[in-house]
Amino acid sequence: MRIAVDAMGGDFAPEQIVDGARLAAGELDAIISLAGPPEAIESCLRELGPRPDNIEIEPATDVIAMEESPRAALRGRDGSSVARAVGLVAEGRAQAVVSAGNSGAFMALSAVRLGTIPGVRRPAIACPMPSPTGPCVLLDAGANADCRPEHLRDFGLMGALYAEHSLGIGNPRVAVLSIGEEKGKGNELTKAAYDLLAETELNFVGNAEPGDIYGDGCDVAVCDGFVGNVVLKTSEGVASLMVDQLKRLIQGSLALKLVSPLLRSGLRQMMREFDYSEYGGALLLGVNGVSIVGHGCSDARAIRNAVCFAHRAVQSRLVEHISEVFAQRAETVA
Amino acid sequence: MRIAVDAMGGDFAPEQIVDGARLAAGELDAIISLAGPPEAIESCLRELGPRPDNIEIEPATDVIAMEESPRAALRGRDGSSVARAVGLVAEGRAQAVVSAGNSGAFMALSAVRLGTIPGVRRPAIACPMPSPTGPCVLLDAGANADCRPEHLRDFGLMGALYAEHSLGIGNPRVAVLSIGEEKGKGNELTKAAYDLLAETELNFVGNAEPGDIYGDGCDVAVCDGFVGNVVLKTSEGVASLMVDQLKRLIQGSLALKLVSPLLRSGLRQMMREFDYSEYGGALLLGVNGVSIVGHGCSDARAIRNAVCFAHRAVQSRLVEHISEVFAQRAETVA
Repeated sequence: MRIAVDAMGGDFAPEQIVDGARLAAGELDAIISLAGPPEAIESCLRELGPRPDNIEIEPATDVIAMEESPRAALRGRDGSSVARAVGLVAEGRAQAVVSAGNSGAFMALSAVRLGTIPGVRRPAIACPMPSPTGPCVLLDAGANADCRPEHLRDFGLMGALYAEHSLGIGNPRVAVLSIGEEKGKGNELTKAAYDLLAETELNFVGNAEPGDIYGDGCDVAVCDGFVGNVVLKTSEGVASLMVDQLKRLIQGSLALKLVSPLLRSGLRQMMREFDYSEYGGALLLGVNGVSIVGHGCSDARAIRNAVCFAHRAVQSRLVEHISEVFAQRAETVA
Repeated sequence: MRIAVDAMGGDFAPEQIVDGARLAAGELDAIISLAGPPEAIESCLRELGPRPDNIEIEPATDVIAMEESPRAALRGRDGSSVARAVGLVAEGRAQAVVSAGNSGAFMALSAVRLGTIPGVRRPAIACPMPSPTGPCVLLDAGANADCRPEHLRDFGLMGALYAEHSLGIGNPRVAVLSIGEEKGKGNELTKAAYDLLAETELNFVGNAEPGDIYGDGCDVAVCDGFVGNVVLKTSEGVASLMVDQLKRLIQGSLALKLVSPLLRSGLRQMMREFDYSEYGGALLLGVNGVSIVGHGCSDARAIRNAVCFAHRAVQSRLVEHISEVFAQRAETVA
């Protein structure tokens, strides 16, 4: 197996990306191919110590910056690190690709270069959300700002396969993310998606409210990419506000300062649970290959987790499972 | 001034509602009119001690249950406590109404019985969100699941007046809640609303991301009621998950247990900031009267805050200010 990594993507590229790839290489029976300028990558590798045998470099000279439009990445920028990383999968030389760079550009390249799985109308970002009772897969977490009901049905089908094969959740409970649990609560989109999902073979449990994602209400929650992204960003906003408040609370009390090392390690653990890089990043479901969208602020640990997660996704044959289910559905309809 | 309170609305009605009304009555130069069965209210008042002179009872025999459809409240249920409370404002006998009961029924009754302000297409729930730098008004927080761009523009106009007159924020910064700060990021609705808001006289600052609500990015954030409700419920879900995790952290450490009274009071304070009843509840903007939607789980403190907030909203002449601005806009267009 070969896993391509965009060495130049992310706020802390290339150092943290190369370090993360190196950590993963030490653990995995796979070749990690780092796409980027060879000198820069070599220099990072030298500083990090002995170079694992299973790291190779895919030369790329150009870099798509964070603020560039996704369209820029598709036009005459084949030499960019992210385009070369995706290209390795498109050419059949790698089975998975990881980038923490410009996510719009990465998703556009993945969709265009890898192609979508036949029958899938829209690829979607699947993001495992933390919960004391195990993760709940939220999708779409930001790939499609406007969706139709049939897109949400497809998200349910793909999300259930992801939960089953990549997270090991048997017979996953699929829900529509809405603003009331009763059928009939929600907007036009969620009400129509409810009816479509009820007609599938999925273990459909109806509507779930945002709080249920963090509880034990469902294993997969589908929504349009605007709402999914709002959920992610609201969660991050509230979590970091609460941590700031706790820090102020600690600063203001001598007794609490004495136990602050204990509290701080607990806080770090809590923040990690709201950081989807802990689960290895978000997966772009519905494209012909394993494509993992890392957070822009990914550090070495996050990249290591993302590469290990990519490895598991390839091993669990997630893309093949999605292809089979959508092919069967096409046959049933025909 | 007279403020009507639905004594039977809410999970802890009538005890906590009556207690909250009594607390407010002790502080305000206003008559509090409790709508509900006289015997039940009298019995609560007797248990609570001396009865303030400025509390009166508006007899109502029926109660709209939490799970009933809003339509039920509009048909032949004029004797319900919430219908009587709204009725007092509709009849000009009270200037504001507070209910923590079935919010759909309360909003429908408020819209139908009080009527909408001329020029306002859709009333919206305005909810002040917590932030260390002062509240940000989020609207619509749940009244309209599906919205058009012109609704969001109206929400911006009403929200700015609310921020200015009821929260004392001068020249409030108004933003569209979206999933990227740059113009052009978002869905079809937010992109169209962006253009409409840019044409107004408002201090429009463009898009705000969900994290900005909890920061210092804007004073008013507009969105459709589905998205606004998702933000509220996600915030509550994350906050309560984090508090649960902290409690487990404390339980697992002897040193932390010793300082747990300090931590717990800090946590209570933090949870309060995510509980909009602290700010007095959410206001249904755009109807001809002050109508305050309390949280179903409101306790006496929340009801007291809501009644005091209603008092301030009437004093600040918020409804009159909204009426004037929308009348001016109608003149300009005509």
